[in-house]
Amino acid sequence: MKKEVPLSKAKWIIEPGCVLLVTSGSMEKANVMTFSWQSPLHSGEPCIIMLAINPNRYTYELLKSNNQFVLNVPGENLIEKVHGAGTVSGRKVDKFKKFGFTPVPAAKVDPPLIDECSAHLECNLTQVIDLDHHHLLIGNVVHASADERFFNGCWDPERFHTLHYLGDRRYGVMDRMLEVYP
Amino acid sequence: MKKEVPLSKAKWIIEPGCVLLVTSGSMEKANVMTFSWQSPLHSGEPCIIMLAINPNRYTYELLKSNNQFVLNVPGENLIEKVHGAGTVSGRKVDKFKKFGFTPVPAAKVDPPLIDECSAHLECNLTQVIDLDHHHLLIGNVVHASADERFFNGCWDPERFHTLHYLGDRRYGVMDRMLEVYP
Repeated sequence: MKKEVPLSKAKWIIEPGCVLLVTSGSMEKANVMTFSWQSPLHSGEPCIIMLAINPNRYTYELLKSNNQFVLNVPGENLIEKVHGAGTVSGRKVDKFKKFGFTPVPAAKVDPPLIDECSAHLECNLTQVIDLDHHHLLIGNVVHASADERFFNGCWDPERFHTLHYLGDRRYGVMDRMLEVYP
Repeated sequence: MKKEVPLSKAKWIIEPGCVLLVTSGSMEKANVMTFSWQSPLHSGEPCIIMLAINPNRYTYELLKSNNQFVLNVPGENLIEKVHGAGTVSGRKVDKFKKFGFTPVPAAKVDPPLIDECSAHLECNLTQVIDLDHHHLLIGNVVHASADERFFNGCWDPERFHTLHYLGDRRYGVMDRMLEVYP
């Protein structure tokens, strides 16, 4: 069951550096991009995040049309779809159909959530920094939600296994938690 | 045994989104900062990386003195030191001494490597972007090295377990690898 996450806790959804699926566009015309060049930029409210993206990507074109995007967090069970979505362009193929992702309306932005993912950050683009090779997209998180079985202010890696890109066709799996005692 | 990593492979050292120890300063006066707000910005040569840092940090002050820094990758065995180094300021305490990190000279920059870590990216700062709350530090990797038992163009999570910050005193551990078949 997915529940709203307070914006003060939203950055913990992406802090572990896991692979994301970025959705852009609208319910009628959307794209999915496999992504891991992101970072939080501000912890509190607004929760601010950054994506580094090649401006030639179809996601960038769609994203600039309404200045909105969604970060969706896939688990280990989606690895084949995550990898597949990273190998083709949305200009040529509808990745929702091809990989069986289910689009569902977001709470506050136009791009759809991916129902199969376990957490979602809905974002408004506030600034673009052009570094030639890549553009830095700065966004404010305007709504966050997560599966309460797996995320309760922080991820539970014993129950939900995020993917971490290692290169080529390889992904690391985060599936254990350590707690430092004071 | 640590070996030089070609710069074309350097970004794979930080791509999984793991916790880093950032060193700044010089062999004579150095600091260590626990860090996870980083992203690659360019894959090839130069390998370009970004850090998002609060400009009030002591690391920022030291780093601006010579425009150099090193990203060191700690494994699971260093979790207590990693967490400890994230809870005190280098303005008040010598974190190398306090946490038993061994400084060793880098190949191409002034800040020391941390011997106990398993990979190192030596970086020259090339650009600073002021976003008020945080500054984005853009750097070129000028030398990379890693323990060849654990990193051979990509990490081997079965042998080397990176840490991924979950919040508070909790860290996720990446300790399994999945490969997608073509």
